[in-house]
Order: sequence, then C-alpha cells, then structure tokens
Amino acid sequence: MALIQSVETGFYRIPLPLALSDSTHGEITSFELITVRLRDSEDAEGVGYTYTVGRNGGSIAYILRREIPELIESQEADDTEAIWQRAWWALHYGGRGGPSVLALSALDIALWDLKARRANLPLWRLLGGFDGRVPCYAGGIDLDLSVEDLLKQTDDNLGKGFRAIKMKVGGPDLASDVARVRAMREHLGEEFPLMADANMKWTVEQAIRAAKAFQPFDLTWLEEPTIPDDVAGHRRILAQGGLPIAAGENLRSLWEFKNYIVGDAVSYPEPDVTNCGGVTSFMKIARLAEAFNLPVTSHGAHDVTVHLLAACQNRSYLEAHGFGLDRYIEHPLILEQGVAIAPMRPGHGVSFDWKGLVPLSV
Amino acid sequence: MALIQSVETGFYRIPLPLALSDSTHGEITSFELITVRLRDSEDAEGVGYTYTVGRNGGSIAYILRREIPELIESQEADDTEAIWQRAWWALHYGGRGGPSVLALSALDIALWDLKARRANLPLWRLLGGFDGRVPCYAGGIDLDLSVEDLLKQTDDNLGKGFRAIKMKVGGPDLASDVARVRAMREHLGEEFPLMADANMKWTVEQAIRAAKAFQPFDLTWLEEPTIPDDVAGHRRILAQGGLPIAAGENLRSLWEFKNYIVGDAVSYPEPDVTNCGGVTSFMKIARLAEAFNLPVTSHGAHDVTVHLLAACQNRSYLEAHGFGLDRYIEHPLILEQGVAIAPMRPGHGVSFDWKGLVPLSV
Repeated sequence: MALIQSVETGFYRIPLPLALSDSTHGEITSFELITVRLRDSEDAEGVGYTYTVGRNGGSIAYILRREIPELIESQEADDTEAIWQRAWWALHYGGRGGPSVLALSALDIALWDLKARRANLPLWRLLGGFDGRVPCYAGGIDLDLSVEDLLKQTDDNLGKGFRAIKMKVGGPDLASDVARVRAMREHLGEEFPLMADANMKWTVEQAIRAAKAFQPFDLTWLEEPTIPDDVAGHRRILAQGGLPIAAGENLRSLWEFKNYIVGDAVSYPEPDVTNCGGVTSFMKIARLAEAFNLPVTSHGAHDVTVHLLAACQNRSYLEAHGFGLDRYIEHPLILEQGVAIAPMRPGHGVSFDWKGLVPLSV
Repeated sequence: MALIQSVETGFYRIPLPLALSDSTHGEITSFELITVRLRDSEDAEGVGYTYTVGRNGGSIAYILRREIPELIESQEADDTEAIWQRAWWALHYGGRGGPSVLALSALDIALWDLKARRANLPLWRLLGGFDGRVPCYAGGIDLDLSVEDLLKQTDDNLGKGFRAIKMKVGGPDLASDVARVRAMREHLGEEFPLMADANMKWTVEQAIRAAKAFQPFDLTWLEEPTIPDDVAGHRRILAQGGLPIAAGENLRSLWEFKNYIVGDAVSYPEPDVTNCGGVTSFMKIARLAEAFNLPVTSHGAHDVTVHLLAACQNRSYLEAHGFGLDRYIEHPLILEQGVAIAPMRPGHGVSFDWKGLVPLSV
C-alpha cells in the first residue's frame, strides 16, 4: 500500500532560446510548463508535467491545485486506472477536453513515474519493454525561417545525429511551400526520411492540392493538414492526396483517436502524453493503433515519450524537440545516430532542476 | 463602432435550496456560477454566464480573467464571429473542450447581449424571431427521490404550469427504473410528454435493454444513455432501442454535434448555450439540426436559451430548471401553461442581483 500523501504543482514560463514558428501559432517565444510532484505515504516521489505553447497554463495549474488534491489524497497510488477514471469523471462537466485533460495528463505521468520508481524499473520496462532504442526525428518549428536558414538548421540537426527530420509547411502560398520542401529534399538526398507539418492550416481541398504537389518529394507523412475536428476531412485528404497522414497532437482522448483510427483518417496516430490523458491514455491509443496495424508516432515531451514508444511493437518515430526544457533537466535525452535511448534509471528518469526553475515561476 | 473596453469576471458558489441527484454526479448541493460583464466604448453593457455542477469553475474564471481580456480588448464588439474565432484559436492548444469552451461561452453570451441591447432588440428577435412562446418541460434532477417524493415533485411541477416533465433514470437496477417510469406514466396519464435522462450511466447494451423496457411508457425521448464520446454507440441505441434519443449537454463544439447529427446518433440535439460555445455555436448547431430535419432542445440556462429557441423554426422543448439561480435574477423566466415566454426586454434581459451575489463569491 502506497497512499498518495501530497501533490505539489508548479507553473513556469520557459523562454525559448530561439523563437519557433508554425502556420497556426505564429511566433512562439516561450512556453508554459506545469509540473506535478506527488509524494506517497512511504515518501517515494513521482514527477509529471504538461506544457502549452503559451496560454491556459494558469488554468491547468489551477485545476491541479484546487480540484485534484481532494480527489486523490489517500488513494492507492498504484491504482492508476482507478485514479484516472475518478479524476476524469469528477472533472467531466466542464472537462472532457481542454485544460482538464492536460492537468490529468500531468497527474497521470507523475503516478506512473512513482509506480515505476517504487518498482525500481525504468518506465518503458514497467509498461512492456519492447526495444529501448527508439528511432526519432528532429521536429523543426521553422515556418518563418528563410530557405537558407532552414537548410542551416537542418545541417545542425544532421550534426546532432538526426536521421529523420520534420519541417513546417502552410506558408502564404503553395508555391513557397513546394519550394521549401524541394530544397529540403535536394539537400537531404533521396530516401532520407522527411516529414511536413501544416498545423491545421488548410481546408480539405487545399490540403489535397498540397499533398498532390508534395508527392514528388517522397514525404514520410503530411501532418495535421486541417482542423482536428474534421475526421471525414482527414479521411478524404488521406484517400485523395496520396500521402500518409499524421495527426493527433490536438486530440484529447482515447475516443477522439478511435474516431480517426476506425475512420481510416490517419496513417500515423500521434498522441502527446502531456495532453491526451497521460501514460494511461497514450498506451491505450498505441495499443488501439496496433490492433489496426498502424504505426504510432508522438508529439512533445520526448523525455517521457521515449519510454512509451520503447514499450510498443508498433512504434514509429519519436518526435524530438526540447522546447528549451533541456536546460532544466538533469539528464537530457541521449541520441545516437538518429536513435533515442530510453534511460535505464527507475521511473521516467526526468529530474528537474527545481532551483533553476524558481526564477521562471509564474 | 463599439469597442470592447472592459471585462469583469465573477465566480460564485450558489447553494441549492434542495439537493439534486443524477446517475453520474450523485448528489449536487451547490453549483458554480461564472459571470462576465462587458463594457464597450460607449458604456453599454453585456452580461454572460456559465455554470458547472461543482468543479472547474475556478479554472473557467481564471481563463476569463487572465487570457480573455488581452484577446478582446479594443475589438469591435459587434464582430461576434471574429471574436469567437480569435478566442477559440488563441486557446486552442490546451483548449478545444473543457473549461476553455465554458469560458468562451460566457464571453459570447455577453457579446450577444451587448449587441442586442445596443440594437434595442430582445435577443430572440435579433437572432431571427420565430415565436416568442416556447414549449418547455420541467427538468427533474431526482434520481435519489423515493417514488412518493417523485410524484409529489411532479404535482408541484404541474401546479407551476408545466405540461411536460423529465425524470432521471439510471438507478441501481433496471427494475427500479421501470417502476419509477411506470409510476410517472400512470400518474401523468396517457399522452402527457414524459422524458427520461440516464446521465451517461449505461453501456450500449444496457441502454438498449433499458430503452426496450421503457417502450410501453411512450417516452418523448431517452437522454444521454451512454458516454458522449461514443457516437456509434448512440446510433446503435437509437436504431435498436426503439426510443428517440436526446444528447448534447456534454458536447463542446459544433463539430461534436455534427458527428451526432450526420451519424444518425441523435433525435433531439440538446446543446447548452453555456458550454457548447455560446450563442454563436448554439445557433449554428440549431441550424444544422434544421438542415437534417431534427428538432432541437436545450440544456441549462433557460433564461438565455428561451431566446435562442424562440428564433428557431425547429425548436422542440426548452428545458427549464433554475439551479437555484432565480433568487439572484431580477426577472425570472415566465411560464404560462407549459410555455416559456421570451422576454421583450432588450438583450437576453437577465439582470443579476450583483449585491445579493457578493456573499457567494469564491
């Protein structure tokens, strides 16, 4: 028996060393980090976190501080499924999406970290243990870069050992998108895995037109071509555009992924453990994808997600981008020739530099 | 030009005169009220609000206080569609559901109130003006009442002039649900419109079994038989259970309603203006239902919603229940023989007793 004793929530604004840019969020200069530290009755600790690209962090922190503690204190910490259901339903009215799910995700990550640390197992082995070496790609958030700077960023990524790269599309016109993709393909050479991400920019017809225009450049996938609410639209883009489709960073539950997966609307389901409902939901989504013979990829929080994909037979690429968080983590993710190494430390193995974070507290 | 000048948010906990009960939320002894007061550059005012059955109110208030003002200040107040889109997308990451949508709903209601007051029109005439007399039903939240108390509550409702009544089902076993429904039908007589609401309690098979058991009692509809995430399940219940299905109080966008409406999964779409995205979304949902030849009903906030249904050719019953709010509203909804009367005052015509609310501030 390990009963949950305390929940401590942190809320920070992390400045980005370099501004990021995509077709929907424009320029991103900082992100919000919301942390959860759980302590159980035997003084073991679990750490979870979620993040946003700039808004709603306060609302998430509020839920973790004001709603969650009374729901989970004195509950059996290892009963992650029971706690997930309890929190989901307690927050359901006014929940079922949005900040509530991000709060629940952070909590759930902390619970799984605690469980794995108590079991003295790295999270990926606790969850299944398939292969601790996970192929990953560099997630470029680079729509505002000139082609020259884009290629320079790409050389940096190649220098870091990446063997797959994603770029942004969804610029002011299709011709400039095509020019950027062509430049990247020529720079990287044939066969190098290259993905493109439109961040929900297009209508369905625009997306089909773009997918067709990108066909000569052999993209591994085209990501988020239109709004996440349009399952039928994604199905049509996938069927008519002639490119594999990745989607999921803006889906907030197992059921939303189910609609895409059952609806032939996605080739690469792409959950984000910090906003899909945590480890509990991510693993259900990944197993659902497996049942449908689909590879699963990921979004965000690579330090935690490397464990989840390392437990999945059907893992595709892990998305690696640090959002500037590496500076505040004791052991940043290790990459070897395009492969991320799932740590062998107990839990997910992410230790925050809590002191370093203090000046960034909101 | 009427530019938005200020946004003032209130957060209150309203005790209920009598505890309510349903199959999912258990006993409800109070609800949370979150209010928005907008003022424009010509000193005109608009008021909006949303509510929860007990949690997430603080998170909603936080969004309205910390995120919304900088998004809307100095915007043209009458451009409700532009403001809705701006807020939706600004809050999208960590939004798209949950507390963000409830906050947006309250804001949007305030904007429509402001627009109608400036136009010197009651909201229902501004929106379309079909028929100011809207059939309504008493929404009983009464699962914990004994059959005797249920019938007594029913007599009270008949005394208040109601000519249609909804009751809760989803008790510990189907036999007791059937007994309650039978008692109500016998008490009310044939032809009296009676609805039953299961508040998401059942699996699909349980719901089909219950619907079949209720068939002899001629229900107008069976409401929320299972979780809102399961569109295909609702379609199956509707097709196999043999009863009309109402659903929607836990759907949080036009697109979620679209899935139900296009998917033959609902007979009576039931948006709640305070959580589906406000007046802007409610009217789109109602018009979508019209295109599919479906009557639209409603959930919650009857004082605002009476205007929306009064502008719809395809309006079905308005749900009337006050959640104890009547004590804090200057002109509570007027009922005449089962018909709610849309007020002729400019705007939605809801004036809160702000002084009376002060002691309930959280």
